[in-house]
Amino acid sequence: MTPLAAAAGAAETLGTLFVVLLAAKVGDELFKRLGQPTIVGEILAGVVIGGSVLGLVEPDATLTVFAELGVVLLLFWVGLETRLSDLRDVGSVALQAGVLGVVLPLAGGLAIGVAAGESTGTSLFLGAALVATSVGITSAVLVALGVVSTRWARTIVGAAVVDDVLAMLIVAVAVGVVTEDGTDLATVAGSTALAVAFVAFFALGGTRLMQRRPAILRAPRFSESPLLPAVLLCLGVAALAAQVGLAAIIGAFLAGMMVAETSDRHAVEAEVAPLYAFFTPFFFVFVGLQLDLSAFTNGTTVALVVITTVVAAVTKYIGARVGARSLGRAEARLVAVGMVPRGEVGIIVAGIAVAEGAIDERLFAVIVTMSVLTTLVVPPVLRTLVRREATGAPYAS
Amino acid sequence: MTPLAAAAGAAETLGTLFVVLLAAKVGDELFKRLGQPTIVGEILAGVVIGGSVLGLVEPDATLTVFAELGVVLLLFWVGLETRLSDLRDVGSVALQAGVLGVVLPLAGGLAIGVAAGESTGTSLFLGAALVATSVGITSAVLVALGVVSTRWARTIVGAAVVDDVLAMLIVAVAVGVVTEDGTDLATVAGSTALAVAFVAFFALGGTRLMQRRPAILRAPRFSESPLLPAVLLCLGVAALAAQVGLAAIIGAFLAGMMVAETSDRHAVEAEVAPLYAFFTPFFFVFVGLQLDLSAFTNGTTVALVVITTVVAAVTKYIGARVGARSLGRAEARLVAVGMVPRGEVGIIVAGIAVAEGAIDERLFAVIVTMSVLTTLVVPPVLRTLVRREATGAPYAS
Repeated sequence: MTPLAAAAGAAETLGTLFVVLLAAKVGDELFKRLGQPTIVGEILAGVVIGGSVLGLVEPDATLTVFAELGVVLLLFWVGLETRLSDLRDVGSVALQAGVLGVVLPLAGGLAIGVAAGESTGTSLFLGAALVATSVGITSAVLVALGVVSTRWARTIVGAAVVDDVLAMLIVAVAVGVVTEDGTDLATVAGSTALAVAFVAFFALGGTRLMQRRPAILRAPRFSESPLLPAVLLCLGVAALAAQVGLAAIIGAFLAGMMVAETSDRHAVEAEVAPLYAFFTPFFFVFVGLQLDLSAFTNGTTVALVVITTVVAAVTKYIGARVGARSLGRAEARLVAVGMVPRGEVGIIVAGIAVAEGAIDERLFAVIVTMSVLTTLVVPPVLRTLVRREATGAPYAS
Repeated sequence: MTPLAAAAGAAETLGTLFVVLLAAKVGDELFKRLGQPTIVGEILAGVVIGGSVLGLVEPDATLTVFAELGVVLLLFWVGLETRLSDLRDVGSVALQAGVLGVVLPLAGGLAIGVAAGESTGTSLFLGAALVATSVGITSAVLVALGVVSTRWARTIVGAAVVDDVLAMLIVAVAVGVVTEDGTDLATVAGSTALAVAFVAFFALGGTRLMQRRPAILRAPRFSESPLLPAVLLCLGVAALAAQVGLAAIIGAFLAGMMVAETSDRHAVEAEVAPLYAFFTPFFFVFVGLQLDLSAFTNGTTVALVVITTVVAAVTKYIGARVGARSLGRAEARLVAVGMVPRGEVGIIVAGIAVAEGAIDERLFAVIVTMSVLTTLVVPPVLRTLVRREATGAPYAS
């Protein structure tokens, strides 16, 4: 009997948002007290309130949007901390780490698929799911440790952009193989070129435009705060990135880089911080919500999870580490560890594969579990490594 | 061809959020330059991008949630500016203004329905749609003018709470009449008692609890900011309010009042401000999106809109003005004008009526148009009155 409220249709949603945010806060506080990375606490909170344990919350359309906004704001924030010159410095090493960090996991995934007797299409999707780094997860750790602007952190972000372009390519090929339309190479080449052009246009042209602040941008003086213009830029470039086939977060990162070149940078950071604090927990909880433990009732599946997770972690680690070797032993290791999480990206690729009929529910559960596991393992390892590298001074958690 | 992004399902939504926020910002800036209330610009922006004009955006589930969060944060903000003692001062006059401001519009709506030859149930719903004040709209004007803590502003907010309890009652009766289950008086009395108890519990007990800050609340020290605990309180009490049949915004207001009693009040205000700035435009645009101008192709409908709007405005004005007469001529007028907007509340009641089969599409369009018109007219009038009352010093727009 809630006439006014029920009609609004959003009352129940308010309750869901409350439960998710409360779970995230509890997980966060608990892990802070345990001396562990808080985002691991938030992801596990998602597992606990999700279908596998308590069944309080399902990952519905609203939560998907909130999670997406969370990771968009996360990468916008990382962009705010990144100058174009910072990326230029690490350009070639990021490219190598990105490419090698894609080739080896792809090969690993293909090998697992073939060894398990799966079709070419299914094996290709398995490879694709192992390819892309979830830069969102690593970024959150980098932000928490206050190391976003170190050389190795910039390398991770740059390599993740390379990753995403390549992942787009591989998924397009995999869809072509599975749908038996064959792969139209001209189309694939065209959309890859478009994606590269998009990144180059905003990374080079966009930042330069903001540096110059021509009259046309300065004309509509926003009397109050720069928040809404900045958020509009973030949403707009993110939506455009999605339009050209990239992840929306790549656009958000580029938008952040553009704002980083303006004098409003610090004002924007101060105002975006509460939005960041509100939205990002939804992203972490959402990752945890995806995990379905009920799929693991037999030994074969558990073995497959273990193998896939190990292959995903090891191939990415080796690929990225070799790619980043010019940074020296210690930093190359940080880059390699930072690129291991698959997070939401592996889950998204698995979702496409299910939609295309290329993988079954069991394999979907395997990929999702691999994504969550790589995501859970990295934050503590990365934090330990960073602290060990730090010259005595302990970092704020 | 957006594999990764399309699978996330949220890429299109990012575009929609971008369009809505951009339209709101343009409407806002335009009306600022015209010297008019900016929320009117935002509502009209909603009309322009909505189905009646450009057809860019439909009021879907995601926008409903964002709009709901917008008005929830709006009332939370008003609550933050309100002390319990402030409300006590105006308790009896707010009660009178609320009750009289409900009785007259109810009678007016019933009269229109009966005169138009509608059934009792339909007439009752027409009356109910004319009853409830959209305190969100008026609150935004009060915030913009910086007059939230004046006596008359507090009276409006208090009366709106009374309004909402009575509206809940009337809608429950109307549903009972229309469904021909008859109205179970015991149930109606029970839910009314529950609603009153809810408001009393949080307004009196909740604020006192926060004043004392017992150890149990202080125990989990939140090392960073008070933002998430405050937002959690807001969402939680809002969701609870919806559960007992009140509008969620009443809960948000009560949560704000509770935080207002703590020493964290100003820190919370500073951190909630960006969330407020981000979410509230969705609420205003959403109101505008509801307007469907295509319903007005014949004279009878237009006449019905004019009559309903005039009756809605005049009955509410007279009722509230008589109720608030003890505040003196000038302030009673401000209270009465401030209670005229029907905003989203009239639209929600009309939505329930459609769902119950009590009103047809034409009458729905009439009520929605009345709601939007009363909402558009009030901000400029209220602003002019406030400035006239002000002793010389011009208010910031």
